[in-house]
Amino acid sequence: MSDREIKVYKDLMGANAEWAAKTRELLKEKGIRMLNLIGSPGSGKTALLEKTAEMLGENRKFAVLEGDVETTRDAERLDCLNVPVSQLLTGGACHLEAKLVHHALIDLDLDALDLVFVENVGNMVCPAEFDVGENAKIAVLSITEGEDKPLKYPLLFREAGAVVLSKTDLAPHLDLDIRDYEKHIWQVHSGVPVLRVSARTGEGLDRWIAEIVKAGQ
Amino acid sequence: MSDREIKVYKDLMGANAEWAAKTRELLKEKGIRMLNLIGSPGSGKTALLEKTAEMLGENRKFAVLEGDVETTRDAERLDCLNVPVSQLLTGGACHLEAKLVHHALIDLDLDALDLVFVENVGNMVCPAEFDVGENAKIAVLSITEGEDKPLKYPLLFREAGAVVLSKTDLAPHLDLDIRDYEKHIWQVHSGVPVLRVSARTGEGLDRWIAEIVKAGQ
Repeated sequence: MSDREIKVYKDLMGANAEWAAKTRELLKEKGIRMLNLIGSPGSGKTALLEKTAEMLGENRKFAVLEGDVETTRDAERLDCLNVPVSQLLTGGACHLEAKLVHHALIDLDLDALDLVFVENVGNMVCPAEFDVGENAKIAVLSITEGEDKPLKYPLLFREAGAVVLSKTDLAPHLDLDIRDYEKHIWQVHSGVPVLRVSARTGEGLDRWIAEIVKAGQ
Repeated sequence: MSDREIKVYKDLMGANAEWAAKTRELLKEKGIRMLNLIGSPGSGKTALLEKTAEMLGENRKFAVLEGDVETTRDAERLDCLNVPVSQLLTGGACHLEAKLVHHALIDLDLDALDLVFVENVGNMVCPAEFDVGENAKIAVLSITEGEDKPLKYPLLFREAGAVVLSKTDLAPHLDLDIRDYEKHIWQVHSGVPVLRVSARTGEGLDRWIAEIVKAGQ
């Protein structure tokens, strides 16, 4: 019985890796970068994308692949921003897999894009385990979640190319020292860039935009 | 290939259900109630247990089975409160399964207890799918996570015997109407009790304690 379980797990991950490799090849051919946003429900991933579209204005050449368990609410939130948005529903699963992302990607007008955001299912654990062919994973962590989270859920932070520390406007109302977040993030992934951001006040958005413009080049 | 996957999934769920049934039988025999706390990382599950131990004082006859992916930080937070705490490490998995919970349970001095809390892995999706033999699941949702979450992750709220809406002290600093949380929770699970709680100011803790004392009887 346990042999069979391990076998199937390997098969699944094998298939996922193949689709991810296919995606990576396609992105390279088209000169597109793909960033995979991962964080808990309510960590601020959709708000960050809303602000990104607003700030890039006419210069936006990006699309969003919006992963959710159910509902099209996030895709609807983004729809008014005039960027291509596709809704990926996992039908109960807690993460996106590479095959679904690949099929959504090839339906986009790729020649008109230089950047694709994947907004993964709200979950700090499982999405970090699945390569979907992205160029980088971006961890999004709200400061309301507690400064111990990078230590408790280290895989995401180890895998991340950058960490967005969101909702910094709430710091005065919480019993915390925001530097503890950075200390714990760097403890599991030394030197990874940490961007303090508030979609509400605008803090840190300039640096975020500079980073993703760079990523899209 | 897809047949094999379905087969293994069924086997796994079958085994889980058997362990959950064994646990439920044991709890009934010992006159113990078990509550399974489920919510995102940083939703306030550990803080709620800290306050529960403080408020129950000498009357506490409960234990905590503390589920985590890695680290024993939450168990250490609870250790000073003088209640029995066992740390359950999933080794990377994003939810607790019934077998692990059962084995931790039978190591406790069950005759000295009338209530057991399971603090599940921080995750709003997967833990809701796994019966661990509890009498009720309690959803813990921080108001910083956004009022759309019950609609986006409905399974947990459908399964929950009660919902704790935590960190209500932050409401004045967020752009939200707290009644939207209740509206959305009741949309997926009509009439489920919703407890507004702040571990920081003490709001709603009396009602929470009354509910769990009732649950333990």
